[in-house]
Amino acid sequence: MKKITVIGGGTGTFVVLSGLKFYPLDLGVIVTMMDSGGSTGKLRDQLGVLPPGDLRQCLVALSEASSLWRNLFLYRFESGDLKGHNFGNIFISALEKVCENYNEVIEAASYILRCKGEVIPATLKKTNLIAEYSDGSLLRGEGRIDGNQSIDKKIKRIYLDPPVEANFSAVRRIENSDYLILGPGDLYTSIIPVLLFGEIRTALLESRAKIIYIVNLMTKAGQTHKFTAVDHVNLVQKYLGREVDKILINNQPIAQEILDFYKKSQEYPVEDDLGSDGRVIRADILSSKQVEKSRSDTVKRSVLRHSPEKLARVIFKLIQS
Amino acid sequence: MKKITVIGGGTGTFVVLSGLKFYPLDLGVIVTMMDSGGSTGKLRDQLGVLPPGDLRQCLVALSEASSLWRNLFLYRFESGDLKGHNFGNIFISALEKVCENYNEVIEAASYILRCKGEVIPATLKKTNLIAEYSDGSLLRGEGRIDGNQSIDKKIKRIYLDPPVEANFSAVRRIENSDYLILGPGDLYTSIIPVLLFGEIRTALLESRAKIIYIVNLMTKAGQTHKFTAVDHVNLVQKYLGREVDKILINNQPIAQEILDFYKKSQEYPVEDDLGSDGRVIRADILSSKQVEKSRSDTVKRSVLRHSPEKLARVIFKLIQS
Repeated sequence: MKKITVIGGGTGTFVVLSGLKFYPLDLGVIVTMMDSGGSTGKLRDQLGVLPPGDLRQCLVALSEASSLWRNLFLYRFESGDLKGHNFGNIFISALEKVCENYNEVIEAASYILRCKGEVIPATLKKTNLIAEYSDGSLLRGEGRIDGNQSIDKKIKRIYLDPPVEANFSAVRRIENSDYLILGPGDLYTSIIPVLLFGEIRTALLESRAKIIYIVNLMTKAGQTHKFTAVDHVNLVQKYLGREVDKILINNQPIAQEILDFYKKSQEYPVEDDLGSDGRVIRADILSSKQVEKSRSDTVKRSVLRHSPEKLARVIFKLIQS
Repeated sequence: MKKITVIGGGTGTFVVLSGLKFYPLDLGVIVTMMDSGGSTGKLRDQLGVLPPGDLRQCLVALSEASSLWRNLFLYRFESGDLKGHNFGNIFISALEKVCENYNEVIEAASYILRCKGEVIPATLKKTNLIAEYSDGSLLRGEGRIDGNQSIDKKIKRIYLDPPVEANFSAVRRIENSDYLILGPGDLYTSIIPVLLFGEIRTALLESRAKIIYIVNLMTKAGQTHKFTAVDHVNLVQKYLGREVDKILINNQPIAQEILDFYKKSQEYPVEDDLGSDGRVIRADILSSKQVEKSRSDTVKRSVLRHSPEKLARVIFKLIQS
C-alpha cells in the first residue's frame, strides 16, 4: 500500500483527508501545531495546552466512526461559559491534562473516532508563528496573522518563536512516505508552518517521496493577495527548498454569487498561469456544495471548497499511475 | 443472575456501584435527575440540558474502561472559561445536543466508558426539587437545598416542580428487580428524589424486589440533623410507602480527626438505635481512605466514605443467602 502523507491542518487538509480515507492507502497527516485563533487560542492561553484545533479537524477528517461521534467533535457550544468552544477542542485539552504524553492523547482520540490513518503533530513543543511584513512590522500568532485582512502590506517571511524542535515521528513519516500532499490551504498559516522546522526540511530533501501541491481556489487577503498559481507554487517551493513534482489545479468556473461574496473581502479566484508546465494536472476538483458556518464560530470560514471525492479520485489515479 | 438496582445518584451511589460492578450481577442504577449545584447547575441553566452530574458519576462508577477514561470523565478544569466544569458533564451535555434522544446519550457515554450495567435516568423531563421547611419557607433546587447547612429548621417535605412523569424504563426496571438498594447518600437530595414519582412508588409497592437500605455514616446539617438510624429508616420508608427488608449499618468507629472535621459543620456519626430489629445487618463497611476534593470543585464533598469493596462483599453475601 502506498504511504501518503498530507501536510497542513486547516479546512483544506480536512477536505483532502476526508476524501482519501476511503481509498486503500497508508494514510497519515502531519499537523501544524501553531493555531491560535478562536476556541483553540483561548484553550491554549487559559489551560496551557497545545493548540487542539487543527489536530481535531484532522482526527475528524480521518474518522470512520458513526456520524454521532463526528458531529460531537465538531459541535460548538452556543451559550454560557462554554460559548464558542468546540467540543472536540475541549476533549483534546482535557485528554492532555490526564494523559502521560501527547501520543496517548492522539491514541485515545483516534480510538473514539476510529481514525483511519496516523495523525502526527509537527511538534510537541509550544511555539508561535510570527509574520514579518514588507514594512518591517511583526504579527505574532497564527490567529492574528490569519485575521489580518489588510492588502496594503505583504508578508516577507514567517518563522517560529521560540524555534522548537520537530516531532521525530513527523520526520520519520516524511522520510518513509511515497507521496506528500501540500495544500489546499492558507499558505502562511496552514501549510508553511510545518515546513519551518529544520529537521522536517532536511527530511523533505532526503525523502524519495513525490510532492503533490494542490493550488488554492481563491486568493487570501493578508496572505496571498493577487497571487497567481505560479506565485503559490513558487512560495511553497521556497519554503520546501525543492521543487514540487505535481501541481493539481481546478479547471472549473466558480459561481458568480460566490465570487461576489469573496469580492467583499478583496479575494479573487487564483489565476491559472501555469501554462504548459509538465507537472500540472488540471481537473474538475470543485465542490458543488456551499459550507455553512456555526453561529458562534468566531473564526471566518471559507464558503467555497474543493470536493473531497473529486480530489481523492484525481490523487488516487495519479498515485497509481 | 440476580437483578440488582441501585437508586440514587450522589457519591454514596458511586461507592455502591463501584464495588458491585465486580460481582456477577445484572446491575443497574436509577439516577435522580434533579442535581443543580456546581458545574451541573451551570450547564443546565446555560445550555438547557438535563443535569449531567449524577448521571456522569454513575457512568464512571460502572466503568470498566482503563483509568484514563475514568480520570478523563472526572477531570475538572482549573482555569479559564471552563474553570470548575467537569469534563464528563461537558461530554454528556454536548452529547445531548447532538443526539436524537437521551437513550442515545447514555448509550454513547456507556460505550466510551465500557459500563457494566444499565444507567437509567429517573426522568427524562426537566424538573426541580423543592424543599418545604418546618417554618413554611421553601427552597428551590437541589443545589440550594444541599448547600443549606442551617440546623435551625427542618425539612417538612420535599416535592418536584413541575411534577413530571418518570422514565418508563426506570419503572420497568424496578418492577423486574430482585433487589433494590437505597443509600448511602443524602436522603433529601440523592435518594428520596427518585421516590417522588407516582409511577415509581407504585412499581416499588408492586415489585417483588427486596429493599436494602444502607444507613449513612454521618448526619447532615440542613437535612438530617440529629437523625438516628431509626430516623433515617423511618424517613426512607415514609417516601417509599413500604418497609425496607434489610438495613445495613456500619459497626466500626470513625477516627477522631474525621469526627473533628465534621463537627465544624455540626455533623455527627449516626447513632445506631436499631436495637434488635431483625432486619439489621451490622458490619465493617467503612473505608480507611480519606477522599480529596479537587481545588476548583465548588461543591462540598464528604471526606468520609463507605468502602466499595466491603459494602459489595456484604451485599453480595446477603443476596446469595
